[in-house]
Amino acid sequence: MSTQSRITLGLIGTGRIGRLHAEHLRFRLSAADLRAVTDLNRDSAQACADRCGIVRVAADHHEILADPEIQAVVVCSPTDTHADIIEAAAEAGKHVFCEKPIEVSLPRIDRVLSVVEHAGVLLQIGFNRRFDANFRRIRQAVAEGEIGTPHQLHIISRDPGPPPVEYIRQSGGIFLDMTIHDFDMARFLIGSEVEEVYATGGVRIDPAIGEAGDLDTATILLKFADGTVGIIENSRKAVYGYDQRVEVFGSKGSIEAGNNYPNTCRIAGAEGVGRDLPLNFFMDRYTQSYLDEMAQFLEAIVTGGRPPVSGVDARAPVVMAMAARLSVQENRPVKLAEIEAQVVSG
Amino acid sequence: MSTQSRITLGLIGTGRIGRLHAEHLRFRLSAADLRAVTDLNRDSAQACADRCGIVRVAADHHEILADPEIQAVVVCSPTDTHADIIEAAAEAGKHVFCEKPIEVSLPRIDRVLSVVEHAGVLLQIGFNRRFDANFRRIRQAVAEGEIGTPHQLHIISRDPGPPPVEYIRQSGGIFLDMTIHDFDMARFLIGSEVEEVYATGGVRIDPAIGEAGDLDTATILLKFADGTVGIIENSRKAVYGYDQRVEVFGSKGSIEAGNNYPNTCRIAGAEGVGRDLPLNFFMDRYTQSYLDEMAQFLEAIVTGGRPPVSGVDARAPVVMAMAARLSVQENRPVKLAEIEAQVVSG
Amino acid sequence: MSTQSRITLGLIGTGRIGRLHAEHLRFRLSAADLRAVTDLNRDSAQACADRCGIVRVAADHHEILADPEIQAVVVCSPTDTHADIIEAAAEAGKHVFCEKPIEVSLPRIDRVLSVVEHAGVLLQIGFNRRFDANFRRIRQAVAEGEIGTPHQLHIISRDPGPPPVEYIRQSGGIFLDMTIHDFDMARFLIGSEVEEVYATGGVRIDPAIGEAGDLDTATILLKFADGTVGIIENSRKAVYGYDQRVEVFGSKGSIEAGNNYPNTCRIAGAEGVGRDLPLNFFMDRYTQSYLDEMAQFLEAIVTGGRPPVSGVDARAPVVMAMAARLSVQENRPVKLAEIEAQVVSG
Amino acid sequence: MSTQSRITLGLIGTGRIGRLHAEHLRFRLSAADLRAVTDLNRDSAQACADRCGIVRVAADHHEILADPEIQAVVVCSPTDTHADIIEAAAEAGKHVFCEKPIEVSLPRIDRVLSVVEHAGVLLQIGFNRRFDANFRRIRQAVAEGEIGTPHQLHIISRDPGPPPVEYIRQSGGIFLDMTIHDFDMARFLIGSEVEEVYATGGVRIDPAIGEAGDLDTATILLKFADGTVGIIENSRKAVYGYDQRVEVFGSKGSIEAGNNYPNTCRIAGAEGVGRDLPLNFFMDRYTQSYLDEMAQFLEAIVTGGRPPVSGVDARAPVVMAMAARLSVQENRPVKLAEIEAQVVSG
Repeated sequence: MSTQSRITLGLIGTGRIGRLHAEHLRFRLSAADLRAVTDLNRDSAQACADRCGIVRVAADHHEILADPEIQAVVVCSPTDTHADIIEAAAEAGKHVFCEKPIEVSLPRIDRVLSVVEHAGVLLQIGFNRRFDANFRRIRQAVAEGEIGTPHQLHIISRDPGPPPVEYIRQSGGIFLDMTIHDFDMARFLIGSEVEEVYATGGVRIDPAIGEAGDLDTATILLKFADGTVGIIENSRKAVYGYDQRVEVFGSKGSIEAGNNYPNTCRIAGAEGVGRDLPLNFFMDRYTQSYLDEMAQFLEAIVTGGRPPVSGVDARAPVVMAMAARLSVQENRPVKLAEIEAQVVSG
Repeated sequence: MSTQSRITLGLIGTGRIGRLHAEHLRFRLSAADLRAVTDLNRDSAQACADRCGIVRVAADHHEILADPEIQAVVVCSPTDTHADIIEAAAEAGKHVFCEKPIEVSLPRIDRVLSVVEHAGVLLQIGFNRRFDANFRRIRQAVAEGEIGTPHQLHIISRDPGPPPVEYIRQSGGIFLDMTIHDFDMARFLIGSEVEEVYATGGVRIDPAIGEAGDLDTATILLKFADGTVGIIENSRKAVYGYDQRVEVFGSKGSIEAGNNYPNTCRIAGAEGVGRDLPLNFFMDRYTQSYLDEMAQFLEAIVTGGRPPVSGVDARAPVVMAMAARLSVQENRPVKLAEIEAQVVSG
Repeated sequence: MSTQSRITLGLIGTGRIGRLHAEHLRFRLSAADLRAVTDLNRDSAQACADRCGIVRVAADHHEILADPEIQAVVVCSPTDTHADIIEAAAEAGKHVFCEKPIEVSLPRIDRVLSVVEHAGVLLQIGFNRRFDANFRRIRQAVAEGEIGTPHQLHIISRDPGPPPVEYIRQSGGIFLDMTIHDFDMARFLIGSEVEEVYATGGVRIDPAIGEAGDLDTATILLKFADGTVGIIENSRKAVYGYDQRVEVFGSKGSIEAGNNYPNTCRIAGAEGVGRDLPLNFFMDRYTQSYLDEMAQFLEAIVTGGRPPVSGVDARAPVVMAMAARLSVQENRPVKLAEIEAQVVSG
Repeated sequence: MSTQSRITLGLIGTGRIGRLHAEHLRFRLSAADLRAVTDLNRDSAQACADRCGIVRVAADHHEILADPEIQAVVVCSPTDTHADIIEAAAEAGKHVFCEKPIEVSLPRIDRVLSVVEHAGVLLQIGFNRRFDANFRRIRQAVAEGEIGTPHQLHIISRDPGPPPVEYIRQSGGIFLDMTIHDFDMARFLIGSEVEEVYATGGVRIDPAIGEAGDLDTATILLKFADGTVGIIENSRKAVYGYDQRVEVFGSKGSIEAGNNYPNTCRIAGAEGVGRDLPLNFFMDRYTQSYLDEMAQFLEAIVTGGRPPVSGVDARAPVVMAMAARLSVQENRPVKLAEIEAQVVSG
C-alpha cells in the first residue's frame, strides 16, 4: 500500500491497551500510519513512541486534534475523559476509535452520539471480543441459521482474579466494568435487543469488594425481543484462569465455544489425564481480536462503511448494566424501557 | 447370597419403567427376589412376568400388599395412584420404592410422609439421576471440597423431543414433569436448600404445547441458602439428542459433566471433524443409574439404613416446581417460604 | 422366549472369564439356558454355580459333553486344554465358544479346525474386542467407505501393569499373549489379510520379564494385502491405565477411537484441567463386548448362521505372532507365507 | 531497543517463506533491522521490499554479502543454492539462517559445516516446527521427566494435498522433502539419536506421483540409541487438512499434541456433533513458530549463544532420509552407520 493511501492516526492514552493498539497500528496493520501519541504521563507516551518508532509525542490530545494531517484518533485515555475527547475529535473532523464505555451517564452518551452524528465522522467502540474467532463463529452460526432459531444463550465470563479494590471502588460496579462486555456479546450473538434483565449477585471472593459497595459474583438472566432467554455467569476469580465460554441453543442444534489454551497437549499420568490451564491473561486471550477490530476500523474509514461496533452498540450495554444494578437492588426483573423512561424523565 | 437373605419384592405397574426395574431385580441384582408383579393391564403384567420368569401375576396391588412374604414394593403405577399405594404399602409394613413424584399436592405429600414415618418403613423416591456416574462424581467433588465452596451451578437438561400433547395436558406442566429432576439434581449437587426461584419460559417448539397450557422451553434461576446461584436450562426438544450436562463453579475450580455417547470415535472428513450423536433415549443414558438406585434401595433394607433419596427429597422439588410456576405467572422471584405459607394457610 | 427355544449350554472353566460368561448367560441373555458348569477346581465351580443359581456342577467336561440335552459349550479352561476340548465337543456334536487362542501350534490348530468342520458344529473364538462399540464403529466406517480406502492403521494397546513373571514365563510371549488381540483387531478393522510383519521390542518395564525370555514393550509394523500399513504399539504398563485406542486413516478421512472413562467430568483447578483416569481393568473396559460376543454366539446357533469370529480368525493371529517373534529375532520383515511354509515343511 | 543494537540483516530469496520472514523481521521483531532483500526474480524482491518498506533491493546475494554493515543473512533461495550461499556468507563473516535442507549430498553438507565452523559464524536451520507451542510442550515434558523415560514415539504428519508433480520430480523424494521435518522432530522430542530406520511406503494418492518415482504415503519405524522406538506416519493428502500430531509414551505417562483449529467451537446438530476442520495451511498452522525461530536466531547473535537448530541438526535428518530410502528399496532395516560408511567410502 502506498504511503498516501494509508490512514493517518493519533493515539490518545498510552496505558496497557493504548500500547497494544500502538504496536498493532505500527507493526501489524499496513493500512495505518500512526503519526503521534500522547498521554497525561509524558514518560509513558515517550516510551511508547520510542518502542514503536513514532516520531511525535504530542503535548496533549488537543495538539493531536489540531493536526490537519491526522484523519483518525484512537482513544485509550481514562473512561471519564472519553466523552469530552470523542466530542472534541468529532468536532475536529476526526474519525474515532474509543475504548468502552463512552460514559456511564446515558444523557451524556446521547449528547456524544449526537455530536458524532452531526459531525459525520465514524465512531467505533472497543468491544474487541466481537472479533474473536470463537465468538465470530458462533455469530455466524446464528446469523446463517446453522442452529436454527436461537432459544437459549449461555455466557460464562470469569476473570482469573479481581482487580485492586481501589480500582473497583471507582469502576462503576461489576455490571458496568465487567459484565458490559457480556451484555455486548449477548446482543451481538443473538442479533436481537434485550428487553428485560433479572440480575442477582453476591460477594463470594473477597469481603473487601463488598465493603467497596460492589459484587464479585453475578448471574444475570436476559430476555430478548425475539424470545431468546440468556444467562450470563460472572465471577471475579476463576482459579484456573480466564474463563470465556459461550453456548447458543436453537431449534436446529447448539454451538458452544470453549476456552483457548496455550497448547493442545494432553498428559496422562498416574493421577489423571490433564492439560495446561487456559490462557490466563485477557491480552493473550484476545490478542488477535484487538488486532482485528482495529483492522476493521481502518477498513471502515477507507471504504466509508459503517464501523462494526457503533455508538448504539456503546449505549445499549450501559442501559443493561443499569437495569442489572436496579434488579439486584430491588430483586425483581427490570425492563430496559424503565431505565429509558428514567432518562427521559430525569 | 443364600435365598433366605434375599429381599422379597412385588412390583406394581409394568409400564416402561416397571419392566426395566423388573429386569434389574430379576437378572442383575442378586440381593432381590422378585415374587410378583401386577398392572391394571393384565396382559402387560403377564408379558413382564413371562419375560422375567416371575411365577406370580397378582390381580392388583392389594393382593401384593396382603402377601406376608413380601417385604418391599416397587411402585411404577400412574402418578395419581402413588400416594394411595404408598400409604397402603406402609400400613401393610412394606418398604416402598416409588417413582417420582409422590403427588403434586403438598398437603397430600405431607400426609403420605406422615403415614410412612409412623409405619417405620423405608421410602425411596426414584430420582435415578443422582446415581449416574457423572453426577455422582460432581457431587463428590463438591462434597469433598475439590472445587472449594460452590458459587455457581449450571444444569442443562433437554429432551430429544416432546411427549405427545395429550401427555403434556395431564402432566402437571414442565416444572413438575421435567424440571423436577433438575430441581432434585440442584439440591443433591450443592447440598444446600433452595430458598428462592425465578423462572421464565416460553413456547418455542410447538404451539400445541402452548395451547395445552404448558411451556416447552424454560430457564430457571435458583438461589440456595448457602449463597450459590443456580441456573437450569430446559427444552423439550434438542435435535441432537438427550442433553444432560452440569457444571459447578467454586472457589477452587469448576467441574463439568458432558453428555454420554455411544462410542468415543471421532471422524475427520472433508467437511469437518465430528462424532456420533449423544445417547438419545433416557433409558439408554441412565441404564446404570436405574440399576444403582435399586441396588441401594435393597442395601438400605438389608442394613436398615436410610434410603439415599428420602421423602423430604420427594417433597422439596414439588415446592420448587410450584414456586417456578408462580414465578412465571407473575414474572417475579418467588421464595419457597411463600409456597409453604400457602400450604399452611390453605 | 419360551423355555424350549433357549439354547442349552455347559460352561467349562470357572476362572475369571468363565464366571463372567456364567453371569451373562444366566442373568443377561434370555436366549441362554446355562445348565451345568465344571472346573478342575471343584470349589470354584460350586461357588460359580451357587452365585448364578445353576443346579448342576459337573465332575468334568466329559460329563457335560455326554449330556444329550446340552447344545453348546463355553470353553474357558487353561489354554493348553482348548484343542482337546474343542475336538471332543465337536465330536459330541456341541457348538463351541472358546476363549483365545485355540493353540499355539499351527498344525494342531489345523487339526482342530478340521475336526470342527467335519462335525458341522459352530466354533466361535473369544476375540471379544471386535464387539466393543468403539471398534465396531471404526469397522463400520471402514466397511461402509466413510473414510474411503484405508491407507494407514494405528493401534495402541497398553496394559495397566504386567502380569506376574510366572505367568509371563508360560504365556508364549507378548505376541501370542497380548498382541494377539491386536493382530485380530487389525484384520477385523481393515478387512484384508496381513502379508508381512516387522516387529521390534525391548524390555523397558521390568528386567525380570527379559530374564523370563520375553519383551514388555513392542512396536509392530504390518503390511496388508490391500496396501494398508498398520502399526501396533504395545506396552505391559501404562501408569494411567488401560490404553486401547485405534485410528484408521483413509482416502476420505480418518476415524479414531479414544479410551473409555468412568465418567465424562472435567475438573478445572489451579493446577490444570483434567479428568479421572480411563477405565483401568479390561473386564470393566470390555464388559459390554463380552456380553455382546456371547449374544451373537447364541444368535448364530439359533439362526444357523456363521459365528462372527471363525476358526480362520483364530488361526491368523497365531501366524502373525510367530512372524513377529521371528522378525524380532532376526531383525527383518517376515512374510506370513514364510511361517506357513514352515508349517507345511515342518 | 536503540537502533544501533539491532541486528542488521539481508534476506536472500523472496518466495513464500522469504516474504514471511521479511514481514516478521520488519514488523514483529524489534531486534531486527532488515536492510536489503534480493531474489533472482527482481519483481518479487521489489514487491517484497515495497510491502515491508525496505529501502534496498540488491542485485544478487553477492551484493548483500559484500555489505559490511550487514551482520546476518536469511537464506530462502532454492535448495540447490543453499550450500554455496551458506559458504559464501560464512566466508564473508555473516551469520546465517537457512531454510532446510542445506543439501542432500552428505559430503557437501560436511564441507559447508566445516566452512561455517572455520568462519566462526552462527548457522541456524529452519526447522521451525521445533518452536511450535505444542511440540515445545512435549519436548519440555520429556526433558523434565514429566512422562518418565520415553518408550514409544508416534508422529503423524500429513499434508492437506500433494504438491504439483513437477515439484515432486525434483524434490528428492518424500523422505527428503516431507519426512525430513519429522525426522528432525523425532530427534528433537526424544533427545537421543536415531540408530536404525525401517521404512515402508506406497503410492495411494496419485499414480502420477509413483510415475515420478516417488511415494505419497509412508510409515517409518525408528530405533533410538536410548531404546525408544518411534513411528512416523506420512501422507501427502489428508482430506480434512493439515494433520500434525505427536504422542510420546513413557514410564510415567504419555503426552499427546492434537491439531490446531481456527476456533474452539463445537456444533451439535441433528446429524452429529462436530467442529470445523483443523488449520489447513502450514503457514497458518506454524505462523508463530516461524516468528519464534527467527526471534531465537536474533537472540543467539545478540548473546553469542548457540543457535537452537545447529548444523548437526541439519545433517542428521538427511542421513535418516537416505536410510529410509534404502530401507524401502531393499525392504530391510537400515542402520544410519551404514549410510555414514558409504559417505566415508564414497
